[in-house]
Amino acid sequence: MEETFVPFRGIKNDLRGRMMCYKQDWTGGFKAGFRILAPTTYIFFASAIPVISFGEQLERDTGGVLTAVQTLASTALCGIIHSILGGQPLLILGVAEPTVIMYTFMFNFAKNRPELGSKLFLAWSGWVCVWTAALLFLLAILGACSIINRFTRLAGELFGLLIAMLFMQEAIKGLVHEFHIPERENPNSVQFQPSWRFANGMFALVLSFGLLLTSLRSRKARSWRYGSGWLRGFIADYGVPLMVLIWSAVSYIPAGNVPKGIPRRLFSPNPWSPGAYENWTVIEDMLNVPVYYIIGAFIPATMIAVLYYFDHSVASQLAQQKEFNLRKPPSFHYDLLLLGFMVIICGLLGIPPSNGVIPQSPMHTKSLATLKHQLLRNRLVATARRCMRNNASLEQVYGSMQESYQQMQTPLVYQEPSARGLNDLKDSTVQMASSMGHLDAPVDETVFDVEKEIDDLLPVEVKEQRLSNLLQATFVGGCVAAMPFLKMIPTSVLWGYFAFMAVENLPGNQCWERILLLFTAPTRRYKVLEEYHATFVETVPFKTIAAFTIFQTAYLLVCFGITWIPIAGVLFPLMIMLLVPVRQYILPKFFKGAHLQDLDAAEYEEAPALPCNHATEREMSRTASFPDDGEILDGMVTRSRGEIRHVCSPKVTISPTTSSKELKSTLSFSDKVISPRLSELRGDQSPRSGGKGPFSPRSGEPKSSNLGKSG
Amino acid sequence: MEETFVPFRGIKNDLRGRMMCYKQDWTGGFKAGFRILAPTTYIFFASAIPVISFGEQLERDTGGVLTAVQTLASTALCGIIHSILGGQPLLILGVAEPTVIMYTFMFNFAKNRPELGSKLFLAWSGWVCVWTAALLFLLAILGACSIINRFTRLAGELFGLLIAMLFMQEAIKGLVHEFHIPERENPNSVQFQPSWRFANGMFALVLSFGLLLTSLRSRKARSWRYGSGWLRGFIADYGVPLMVLIWSAVSYIPAGNVPKGIPRRLFSPNPWSPGAYENWTVIEDMLNVPVYYIIGAFIPATMIAVLYYFDHSVASQLAQQKEFNLRKPPSFHYDLLLLGFMVIICGLLGIPPSNGVIPQSPMHTKSLATLKHQLLRNRLVATARRCMRNNASLEQVYGSMQESYQQMQTPLVYQEPSARGLNDLKDSTVQMASSMGHLDAPVDETVFDVEKEIDDLLPVEVKEQRLSNLLQATFVGGCVAAMPFLKMIPTSVLWGYFAFMAVENLPGNQCWERILLLFTAPTRRYKVLEEYHATFVETVPFKTIAAFTIFQTAYLLVCFGITWIPIAGVLFPLMIMLLVPVRQYILPKFFKGAHLQDLDAAEYEEAPALPCNHATEREMSRTASFPDDGEILDGMVTRSRGEIRHVCSPKVTISPTTSSKELKSTLSFSDKVISPRLSELRGDQSPRSGGKGPFSPRSGEPKSSNLGKSG
Repeated sequence: MEETFVPFRGIKNDLRGRMMCYKQDWTGGFKAGFRILAPTTYIFFASAIPVISFGEQLERDTGGVLTAVQTLASTALCGIIHSILGGQPLLILGVAEPTVIMYTFMFNFAKNRPELGSKLFLAWSGWVCVWTAALLFLLAILGACSIINRFTRLAGELFGLLIAMLFMQEAIKGLVHEFHIPERENPNSVQFQPSWRFANGMFALVLSFGLLLTSLRSRKARSWRYGSGWLRGFIADYGVPLMVLIWSAVSYIPAGNVPKGIPRRLFSPNPWSPGAYENWTVIEDMLNVPVYYIIGAFIPATMIAVLYYFDHSVASQLAQQKEFNLRKPPSFHYDLLLLGFMVIICGLLGIPPSNGVIPQSPMHTKSLATLKHQLLRNRLVATARRCMRNNASLEQVYGSMQESYQQMQTPLVYQEPSARGLNDLKDSTVQMASSMGHLDAPVDETVFDVEKEIDDLLPVEVKEQRLSNLLQATFVGGCVAAMPFLKMIPTSVLWGYFAFMAVENLPGNQCWERILLLFTAPTRRYKVLEEYHATFVETVPFKTIAAFTIFQTAYLLVCFGITWIPIAGVLFPLMIMLLVPVRQYILPKFFKGAHLQDLDAAEYEEAPALPCNHATEREMSRTASFPDDGEILDGMVTRSRGEIRHVCSPKVTISPTTSSKELKSTLSFSDKVISPRLSELRGDQSPRSGGKGPFSPRSGEPKSSNLGKSG
Repeated sequence: MEETFVPFRGIKNDLRGRMMCYKQDWTGGFKAGFRILAPTTYIFFASAIPVISFGEQLERDTGGVLTAVQTLASTALCGIIHSILGGQPLLILGVAEPTVIMYTFMFNFAKNRPELGSKLFLAWSGWVCVWTAALLFLLAILGACSIINRFTRLAGELFGLLIAMLFMQEAIKGLVHEFHIPERENPNSVQFQPSWRFANGMFALVLSFGLLLTSLRSRKARSWRYGSGWLRGFIADYGVPLMVLIWSAVSYIPAGNVPKGIPRRLFSPNPWSPGAYENWTVIEDMLNVPVYYIIGAFIPATMIAVLYYFDHSVASQLAQQKEFNLRKPPSFHYDLLLLGFMVIICGLLGIPPSNGVIPQSPMHTKSLATLKHQLLRNRLVATARRCMRNNASLEQVYGSMQESYQQMQTPLVYQEPSARGLNDLKDSTVQMASSMGHLDAPVDETVFDVEKEIDDLLPVEVKEQRLSNLLQATFVGGCVAAMPFLKMIPTSVLWGYFAFMAVENLPGNQCWERILLLFTAPTRRYKVLEEYHATFVETVPFKTIAAFTIFQTAYLLVCFGITWIPIAGVLFPLMIMLLVPVRQYILPKFFKGAHLQDLDAAEYEEAPALPCNHATEREMSRTASFPDDGEILDGMVTRSRGEIRHVCSPKVTISPTTSSKELKSTLSFSDKVISPRLSELRGDQSPRSGGKGPFSPRSGEPKSSNLGKSG
C-alpha cells in the first residue's frame, strides 16, 4: 500500500472497491445455505466466551458499574453495524482486553474524584469516547492506515506478549481472590467462613486448571489418533466452549454438600432487572461533567485512539493475510472511520466500545476458507468421478474439473477474468502423469485418488461474504437474553480461560520463541529451526539474537511495569507507538542491517535479493493447502505468521519400488525436508499465492504479514 | 534354556555359574569407586517410594496392623540377603502390589474369624509364608523356572495391565476417601467438619493431580529443549522423588490457615514407639493358630507361590534382557530357592515378604549399563586423543582403542577370552574410512569426532556387581529410621504416585496399544507402526487384531472382577496360570498360527524364517547404543520390549554435498527410516548383540524377552 496522506483518498478508494462487491457479499452468503452456520457458530463461541470473561473482569474492576451485559451488548451492536456497513466483513469486532484495561484505569481515576465518582464515570467515559472518535476520524481521513506496516513484527509481538502477561496476571489475581472474601459480599455468610473459603479456593484451583489443561489438549485434537476426523475437527474447533460447559457441569457435582455460593459464579444483573438500564441513559448525565474533565478526557482518548488504530488495523490485516488468496479489496481507512462512529454510539450508550479482535478475525477467515474448500471440493469430486465413469483420460478429467472450477468462480465486475487457479496445477500434474505414461489411458481410482488429488490441487480460497459476521453478532446479542444460564459459569472457569488465552497466544510469537531459545541447550538449538521455520537461528549469530531478545524483553517488562502505575498506566499504548521510531532510527545503530532484517523484517528496508525466493512462495502455497483435515491451515492461522524462507534441503530421492504404505511413513518422518522437492516433482513452478502477481486484484493491500499476534 | 526337570540340576548349574564370578562381583563393585552411588541412589528412590506407598495402602487395608515400617523393613532385609547370597545381583527385591493385595485378602478373611481375628492375623500369615516357602522350594528343586518362557507376551502384558488397573483403583479409592472421615479417627475433630473435609478433598485433588502431571512431564525431561544435558538427565532420573518432595512442600503452604491434619499425611508409628515391635514376636503366637487354619493356610500359599514364581522369574528375566549383553550367567532356580527362605524369615518376623520387582530390576541393569559405558568411554576417549596427538592414522587409533578396551574387560575364568567388542566395529569403520581415502593419513578431530565415534562404537555392557544392590537395600533400611520425615508426605501425594505408576506402566504394553488401536481412526492406524515398531499392524488383518484384543480385554476384565470377590479374590493368580494352556491349546483353534506368532510370539512355536533377520539384530544393537543422552536406552527399558522386525525401508540417499547441519536435521526427521541403511553404510554387517553367538557365555539364559511389563 502506497503511503499517501491526501485527505479522504484512502476512504474513497476503500468505498469504491467494496461497493462493487457489496451485493455479492450478501448473495454469496445466502447461496452457501445452511453450511454458513458452521463458521458462524465457530466464531460465535470464540467471540462470546472472552467477551463474557472481560465482562466479569470489568464487573470486578469497576465495582459492578459495567458487567457482562454491557460487554455483550457492545460486541453485538458493533458487530451488527460493522457486518452491514463495514468495509471488510471478515473483520470480527468485540470488546477486547486493552479496552477493559483502559476502562479500569479510567474508573480508578474517576472514582476518587469527588466531581465525578462512580456515578458520573460513564458520562465522563462518554466524553472520552467522543474525543476518541474525533481522533479516529482524523486518522482515517488523513490515511494513517497506510503506514501500518511501519509497525514491524517487533511491535506486534511485543504487544501480543504484553496482552498475554496481562491475561495471566488477571487469571492469577482471580484465583487468589477465590481464597478471599469479595468486597461486595456480606463477610458473615456461611460460605466466607475460613474453612469454606479455603475449600472454595481449592475448588477454584481444580476447576481453573482443569479447564486450562483440557482446553489446551482439545486444541490439538486434530492430530489425535483416536476418533473419526469429523470428531477430531469438532473437538479442535469447539473444544473450548465444550470444556467451559463440562467444567461448569463439574462445578455442580458437590452441590449437595456445599453451601450456596461455592464455587463462586459469574455475577451480573439480568438485563431486565431494575437498575440494569442505568447505563443506557448516560447521555443525560454527560452535560453534568465539569468542563475541565471534559477537556481532560482528551488524554485517555489519545491513548484509546492509538490503541484502536493499531489493534483494529492489525486485526484486519491478519484477517486478510496473503496466504488466504482473498479476491475482494481491503478497506482499512473506511473501517477506521466507521469504528469512530461506533465508538461514539457506545460512549453515548454507556457501554465499552468494541474494536477488531485477534485471533477471532483470522479464525473467521480461516473457517470461511474451509467452507469454500468444501463447496469447491464436493463439486470437483463429483465432476471427476463422472468423467472417470466415462473412461476419460487424465487430461480430459482435468479439463472438466477446470471447467467446473471456473463456473464456481464469482466473476467480479471490477477485475479481468481470473486465469489462475487450477490451470498451472493441471499443466504440471498432467506433465508429471505423461512422464509416467498415464496421460492417454483411461484413468481409474487406483491410479488417480480423486479426493486426495483434488485436496492437493485446490488453492486456498475464502467464501468472502457478510452473512456469517452478521449472524455471529446477532448470536452474541442473544447471549444477553441467556444471562440466567451464563450466570451458572463459575468464575474460576473464567480464570482458567484467561490462563488458556495467555498460553494459547504464545506459540508462533517469535519473540517468545527467542526468549525460550535463550534457555535452550546449545546442542538443541537446531530444533527451533525444525519446529518454527525460524531461519534466523541459522543466519544471525547467537549473541546478536540474545542481545536483541534481551532488549525486547526489557522493553516488554517496562511496558508491563507501566500498567501497574496507578493512573499514568493509561499511557502504555504510547510505549507501543514509540517502537516505530526506536525500530527505525535507534536499533539500526546497534544491530547489523541484515540481522535486523532477519529478526524483524521491515517492509521499508531494502531486502537483500534472495536467489531462491520462488521456493518461498511455493512453500507457502503448499502450507496453505489442506493436506490433513485442515491441520496445516490451523497452524497457519495460529502460529506460522513468520517469514518462511527457503532452506536448501538435502536431496532425498525416493526409490519408485517402495510401496505406497512405506512411502507414506517416510513422508511423515521427513515431511518438511521432502516437501519442497515434492512440489518440484509436481512441476509446480510458478509462484501462485496472492501478492503482486498480474492475477491479483489486491494490489492495494498492505503486504506485510509480519505483525505478531495480539490481544 | 532347556526344559529339564531333573531335581536339583537347575540349582546346581546356577550355583556353579555364579560361584565362579562371586569374588569379581564384589571387587568389580568396589573398583567402580564413588560412581557406584549414581545407580544406587537412582534405584533407592525408585524402590523406596512405592514401598512407602504400599505401606500406606496396607496400613489402611489392615487397620494399622502392617504399616510402612514393615514394608520398608522387609524390602531392606530381603534386599540385603539377596545382594549377598542371591544368584543374580541385578535383581531388585521389594514388597510389591500383588503381595499387598494377597495380604489384604488374607486380613479380610482373618479379621472375621473369631478364632483368628486381627490379633492372630500375623501368626496365621506366618503359616501361609511357611507353606509358600515349601512350595517355592519344590518349584525351585524341580526346575520349574525352565518353563518360564511358556508364559508368552500375552500373560505378561495381561498381568501388567491388571496391576495398572489395581494401581488406578487404589488411587481413585484413596482420593475418594480424602473426602470422608477415616475409620480410625475421632469424627468430632475440627478437620472432619463437612467444610474442612470438603477442603481436604479438594486439596488432595490438587496435590495428587499435581504430582501425577508433573511426574509424567519430568520423565520426558531428556527430550526437553531447555537446560543442560546433565540437568535434563537428572530430572528424568530423579524427577519423581523430586516431585514427591516438591508437592509435600506445597502441602505446607496453607499451614497457617488450616487446622492440623489438613491435608492428611502418612500414618505410621515410629519404629521406636511402644507397640511398633509387636509384629517382630509373631513367632510366639504361631502355635496358637488352630490346626485347621494352619492347614487352610495352604490355599492362599499356593496362590502366593504361583505369584512369586511368576513375578520373581519375570523380573529377573527382564533385568537380563538380551539387549544388555550380560556376561555373567543367570540364576533362576537358585534365586527361587533363596526366595523361599526369605519368605519364611519374613513370615516369622510378621512382615510381608518381598520378591523381585518390575520395573526396578530392569531399571537397575540399565543404570549399571550407563555406568559401565561412562567408565569405558572415558578410558577410550583418553586413549584416542593421546594417539591423535601423536599423528596416528585411523587404523592405529583403532588399534590402541581395541587394546584399551581389552584391558577393561574382566577376564572371567570360566569362559574363553572374548574376541568380540570393538573388533567387528573397528574392521567395518576402517573399511569405510579407507573407501573415503582417510586410512593412512594422520587423523584429527575434524575428520574423526572422537566422542561421537566412541559412543557409536561401544557395545552395551553392564557393570555386573553386587555393591549397588547391597547399598540400595541398606538405604531402604535407613528409611525406617527416617520415619518422622516420611510422615510429612501427604497421603494424597501417594495416591497421585499410584496413578503415576499405573499410567507409566501403559506405554510399551502391546496389549494396551492394541486396545488403543481399536479406537484409532482407520486412516491413522499406520501411525502405530511408526511409534511402536508394531509390525503386526501390517501383517495381521485388522479383524484378527480386533478379535484377539477383545478376547484379551475380556480376560483382563474377568481377572479384575475376580479381585473384587471378597475372599475368592485370592484366586486371581490362577487366572494368569490358566493362560498357559489357553494360549497353547485353545487360541490356535481360533487364530491362524502366523497371526498368533505376530501378535504373541511364543518361543515354543516354530517361527517362520525371516530372510532379513540380521537386520533385526543390527537394529537392536543400534537401539542399544547411546546416541543421545541415553534417551534410546531409556526407551528400551521402559517400552520397546516388543519384537523389532526389519521393515524394508525406502532407499534414502544422502547427497554428500549437503552441509552437516542440514544433514543433522534430515537425520532427526527421518531417523528411523534411515538408520538401518546408515548402519549398513558403516559396514556393520555381523550381528553382534548377545544371544547364541560363539562369543556369548550366556547360552543358559531363557531367550524370550517377550514377557510384558508387570507390577
